[in-house]
Amino acid sequence: MKDSKLYFHPIGVIRSPHTQAMGTPIQPCYAEEYNGTIEINSEYLEACSDLNGFERIWLFYSFDSSEGWKPKVKPFRDKVERGLFATRAPKRPNAIGMSCVRLLKVEGSTLHVSEVDILDGTALLDIKPYVPDYDSYPAAKAGWLDNSPAPVKKADQRFVDKD
Amino acid sequence: MKDSKLYFHPIGVIRSPHTQAMGTPIQPCYAEEYNGTIEINSEYLEACSDLNGFERIWLFYSFDSSEGWKPKVKPFRDKVERGLFATRAPKRPNAIGMSCVRLLKVEGSTLHVSEVDILDGTALLDIKPYVPDYDSYPAAKAGWLDNSPAPVKKADQRFVDKD
Repeated sequence: MKDSKLYFHPIGVIRSPHTQAMGTPIQPCYAEEYNGTIEINSEYLEACSDLNGFERIWLFYSFDSSEGWKPKVKPFRDKVERGLFATRAPKRPNAIGMSCVRLLKVEGSTLHVSEVDILDGTALLDIKPYVPDYDSYPAAKAGWLDNSPAPVKKADQRFVDKD
Repeated sequence: MKDSKLYFHPIGVIRSPHTQAMGTPIQPCYAEEYNGTIEINSEYLEACSDLNGFERIWLFYSFDSSEGWKPKVKPFRDKVERGLFATRAPKRPNAIGMSCVRLLKVEGSTLHVSEVDILDGTALLDIKPYVPDYDSYPAAKAGWLDNSPAPVKKADQRFVDKD
């Protein structure tokens, strides 16, 4: 390992209708009706070439409004605590968020996307194309989530309030 | 956006048979025969509870050996240059790597995994469970990759050498 600290910086900003965690869909698959845009900083525009034709893209971002973390959390879709890394909760040692959104259109420095589960104003760190050969494992077993007792689709305040 | 710089730190280290880019599989789906381990730093052990039962996990890491980036690159699976964000190339403005590996066993502070396409000694930043409901879109169109003219499965030196 080269460094004990790694530095990342925003390459753009995510705009969405979600202004607070409460009520925001917890994943893109529960956010079908929410469109958003990604404003790409000018120095990264050329790097967005060839995104057209990809139906979906991965967005990587910083969970800006999440501070701190606990090793066990009660996830939205369970009634008991689970190890943090067995959840997609936003309060993490490195608060990297990831969403697989639908790419509607690339227009200048703006990417139009749908199925957005991300808070407005979130700092974008990276974009990767969604490639089914690499990313899609429809039959993979999903541990405690395969028996999730809580059909929750929208967030509450649990990962916002300071502990 | 809170900060123009974001700081991340290793939570563990990835051990694999791959000691150099040359010959390393470019994705987990081309790395079936390669096993590896993840050594989790002690303060993050409890956060690994409940990973058992997940067939796959996402590993997020820093592309330690990649420096710099260019807006267009010739990807392994094409013969022409493509916009960087329409590729999975490792030299990126924020060099966040992501691999969906198979989880074999959790043993103390060691996660045993297979389908490893990551260089030995890579700094681990985050683990998320693979959840087909969230992550699997088998029919998603994949732009230029749907007509990839190059059935390349292993890396060469193109993203290692300094420009």
